[in-house]
Amino acid sequence: MIYLDNSGTTNPHPEVLKSFQEVSTRFFANPSSIHQLGGETEKLLIKSRQQAAKLLSVHEDEIIFTSGGTEGNNTAIKGIALQHQGRGKHIITTEIEHPSVYEACKSLESLGFEVTYLPVNQNGVVSVKDVTEAIRKDTILISIMHVNNEIGSIQPIQEIGQLAKKYPKLFFHVDHVQGLGKVPLTLENSGIDLCSMSGHKIHGLKGTGILYCRRGVKLFPLFHGGEQERMIRSGTENLAGVVSFVKALRLIKEREVNDGDKLRQLHQYLAAELEKIDFVQLNSPANSAPHIVNFSIPGLKPEVMIHTLGKQGTYISTKSACSSKSLDESRIVKACGYSSERAKSALRVSLTYDNTMDEIKIFLKQLKEALSQLKEVME
Amino acid sequence: MIYLDNSGTTNPHPEVLKSFQEVSTRFFANPSSIHQLGGETEKLLIKSRQQAAKLLSVHEDEIIFTSGGTEGNNTAIKGIALQHQGRGKHIITTEIEHPSVYEACKSLESLGFEVTYLPVNQNGVVSVKDVTEAIRKDTILISIMHVNNEIGSIQPIQEIGQLAKKYPKLFFHVDHVQGLGKVPLTLENSGIDLCSMSGHKIHGLKGTGILYCRRGVKLFPLFHGGEQERMIRSGTENLAGVVSFVKALRLIKEREVNDGDKLRQLHQYLAAELEKIDFVQLNSPANSAPHIVNFSIPGLKPEVMIHTLGKQGTYISTKSACSSKSLDESRIVKACGYSSERAKSALRVSLTYDNTMDEIKIFLKQLKEALSQLKEVME
Repeated sequence: MIYLDNSGTTNPHPEVLKSFQEVSTRFFANPSSIHQLGGETEKLLIKSRQQAAKLLSVHEDEIIFTSGGTEGNNTAIKGIALQHQGRGKHIITTEIEHPSVYEACKSLESLGFEVTYLPVNQNGVVSVKDVTEAIRKDTILISIMHVNNEIGSIQPIQEIGQLAKKYPKLFFHVDHVQGLGKVPLTLENSGIDLCSMSGHKIHGLKGTGILYCRRGVKLFPLFHGGEQERMIRSGTENLAGVVSFVKALRLIKEREVNDGDKLRQLHQYLAAELEKIDFVQLNSPANSAPHIVNFSIPGLKPEVMIHTLGKQGTYISTKSACSSKSLDESRIVKACGYSSERAKSALRVSLTYDNTMDEIKIFLKQLKEALSQLKEVME
Repeated sequence: MIYLDNSGTTNPHPEVLKSFQEVSTRFFANPSSIHQLGGETEKLLIKSRQQAAKLLSVHEDEIIFTSGGTEGNNTAIKGIALQHQGRGKHIITTEIEHPSVYEACKSLESLGFEVTYLPVNQNGVVSVKDVTEAIRKDTILISIMHVNNEIGSIQPIQEIGQLAKKYPKLFFHVDHVQGLGKVPLTLENSGIDLCSMSGHKIHGLKGTGILYCRRGVKLFPLFHGGEQERMIRSGTENLAGVVSFVKALRLIKEREVNDGDKLRQLHQYLAAELEKIDFVQLNSPANSAPHIVNFSIPGLKPEVMIHTLGKQGTYISTKSACSSKSLDESRIVKACGYSSERAKSALRVSLTYDNTMDEIKIFLKQLKEALSQLKEVME
């Protein structure tokens, strides 16, 4: 199997699964229970939070454990909107956000909020000038992703953070789900107030994640209840999930340092070789994140290529998994200014540190063979 | 170890954990991915949903997989409130709901909703007459729990369901977290529109649950995004969690049938023996759920008893885990009309099918010994 859909989800690391298993068995008590068993699980929870905070260079009380990226994004966006609507009802985001940000913003329009969706250039990057000009007196939130999940473009988060700092009444949320462990992002003193991360994109488990919530930032919780997670996210803590997430985070951070160059080499080689192939048009920009290569084969239905490769045990994707079932054009590729035909035929290869040069070469060979077979069915 | 805090959380069943492990490894792909690996995981998701639906005697498309009871309760209550607020902003609930219902309702007051908190009688039961009289033209939701988590009182859900049926524009939500697998509840044709369940209360895993959402019921989703779970709960499906939940559900349903009598015997014996002890006052009603016995020892701080028993490896609790850290009086025991002193000194023993008569006898012996030792420190 050659698995090249790592932005859809990753294979959980065996050590991560082992941690989950161990904690589920040995520390099953409710951390909120005041008996000694509850005390032991609470200690492990505190330790995990400390480790996560250290790995992300933030304060412990800024770590909110969640059930994943979609929860993090929705909690941040709706939480700011519902809590601070008295101050203003304007939100700034971009046209290329993940559905969990894009649709969360759309949903707020039905509750009377106004949302500005900023365009991106052909490299899939928003301009800081556009962000600056979009800020109004009633703007309460800017939500901009770090690394785009379809094409891998990297947004100027540090600059926007510096800009956001000048507006202390405005909050800045970053969807870091695709960047985590691949493209470094500084949180401390960055102007970022909220930052979502997901476990299953970094060889952790589904149903796990973190929302970084800067000290002092108040959210209207989506989950009220037992006041867990600083009252921002009530519900019995999924301690096994938490420990597994922190393990995955530590492992991916190690690989980011140790294997980053290798990943960038694979990425470069893949992009260069794809560009040489007739019919193939690269959609990812030259300086994209090191794990995503998006390309179009105009005239070819992407699902046909995916199934042809799949039969040989090689797995790539169209768009994002979260919008792949609607077989129309990619909102992201379209936003980069490309034609509908190109946006309809986009394919995504997404790498992880486990992928090898051999796998990339086999994939390229299979792709070329498939292309020469499929040429006839192309419109 | 004698673990008697099963309403706080349960020990996950080894088979449940095994399922989680297997699915995480063998079916890690994203069910929304259109390649063959995604297709395989999607098939398993569909099969799991069918099994859950069959076990609960509902339709497949009425099963929404969640991250647990708190998510289910908040999704139901806020989802109805935000979606149907144009029709009315009045909600009916009771004074004895779990914090995830009670606080969710409180939070809606800050958004302009009006909430009626109905009282209960000394048995901890709400009256159907009170519910009937509370219904107004602008009532959009009734949210009443099935089994109370602190004292085990069982609410007249079937009757309230029949009442709710007469008001087709009003939705009825039931928090079934403590009842599931212990006290039967019919969903089909019951007048119940929404019903929350949690995995970790039935020997499943934390971070898993189901929200039953009757066909045709529209909610404002808390999580917008990739449109998973009938668009009500977006986010990459935690398939391993889903499979583990369905396994736990099947196992607990079997035990409910096979071991229900045994559990009721244990419960009866425990309650009768507790009543014989000086200083002990029973708070659970005679016809309570078969797994919860709540009692007070006025004058004794409950945490002292919990730690004394805990040193001997026996674990009981105060109130619910979700409100146990605030060491004031129990809102539930107080709502039953008992004194503050009694509400401050409440203890809860919560059983599961694994508990034995021997364990109950040892617990009673330890409790009596502790009482005679602690008599001196009692106020």
